Amino acid sequence: MEMSSKLLERAVAEISQLPGIGKRTALRLALHLLKQPVDQTQLLAGALLKMREEIQFCKKCHNISDVEICEICANGTRDQSIICVVEDIRDVMAIENTNLFKGIYHVLGGKISPMDGVGPSQLNITTLVEKVRTGIVKELIFALSSTMEGDTTNFYIYKQIKDQNIITSAIARGIAVGDELEFADEVTLGRSILHRVPFESSMKNH
Amino acid sequence: MEMSSKLLERAVAEISQLPGIGKRTALRLALHLLKQPVDQTQLLAGALLKMREEIQFCKKCHNISDVEICEICANGTRDQSIICVVEDIRDVMAIENTNLFKGIYHVLGGKISPMDGVGPSQLNITTLVEKVRTGIVKELIFALSSTMEGDTTNFYIYKQIKDQNIITSAIARGIAVGDELEFADEVTLGRSILHRVPFESSMKNH
Repeated sequence: MEMSSKLLERAVAEISQLPGIGKRTALRLALHLLKQPVDQTQLLAGALLKMREEIQFCKKCHNISDVEICEICANGTRDQSIICVVEDIRDVMAIENTNLFKGIYHVLGGKISPMDGVGPSQLNITTLVEKVRTGIVKELIFALSSTMEGDTTNFYIYKQIKDQNIITSAIARGIAVGDELEFADEVTLGRSILHRVPFESSMKNH
Repeated sequence: MEMSSKLLERAVAEISQLPGIGKRTALRLALHLLKQPVDQTQLLAGALLKMREEIQFCKKCHNISDVEICEICANGTRDQSIICVVEDIRDVMAIENTNLFKGIYHVLGGKISPMDGVGPSQLNITTLVEKVRTGIVKELIFALSSTMEGDTTNFYIYKQIKDQNIITSAIARGIAVGDELEFADEVTLGRSILHRVPFESSMKNH
């Protein structure tokens, strides 16, 4: 679409780089910003820049954080011996929202998916295995989505830590198979944390 | 949703100020930016800021512009005696895309809508009437959307310039009644510019 302003054109091009946002939506958003006071755009641009430039990933659990160690890992009241293994930062938020989990997390940053070119080395698996080998971990809860890739990832990790004397569990399959964790309602998700089952028996349903 | 980072929280809050973007979409967009190289966010934020801070509105037609007089008004090959009256910048883009109009535009910035608190004084009507009174205008093409508000606005302007010796026309109703101009296909829109009809006869269909 021909635009009479290169400034607008560039802004639309940048906005439409975002996933799920086409040229037309990008134009609508840009024109909206032009109608609003200039400080709305300044606040938006400032917040995006500050987030991208200053955000850190927790050195212990790889969760998103404003400091070196995230507030969950740094919280003395959280049980450091129970680790909930999740794919993604959004899963941490979803489980935190249930208020039913008092352990800590380990964010893998994805799941093993050869189709998408994601192998174990691209995920935060080594740091998890090392953490387990220190001996402070009593239980590992697998909370990955129940897809083939999720199961593959669970099993890959399980094989590396099964010689250690720890409990391994998987969240209860109260969540429909194939559903994404972040879209589950809080009650279902909370129960799936409370009713976790031993990892071995969780694999029997396959 | 509880987030472990205030930086992320603020970015999500700012993104979800945009129309049609909820908290969940905003979070998805923010996490996407975090996964991309830092310069993608810098380019996006920079383009938004530059657009909002430096963009101008053409002093002649109120179209969006990077300079005082937009490139359409400043273009010597465009017929300055034929003015196409539109609601919005997007309508200019849509008509320009047809490549069938060689006159200039006048962007009203909306249409008269007492329900939304928009009266004639909030629109760029005075500058249009003044332009017509200079005597250089031979034809005024009304290209507002065919809604009650569009018709009201057309008629409001028409009353103020009907004593002037100019042709008034309205784009052909090839575009379905009630449809927004910007969503029309280029062929239909192009024809509606070519087959415009005298304003008086265009009002007879109501």
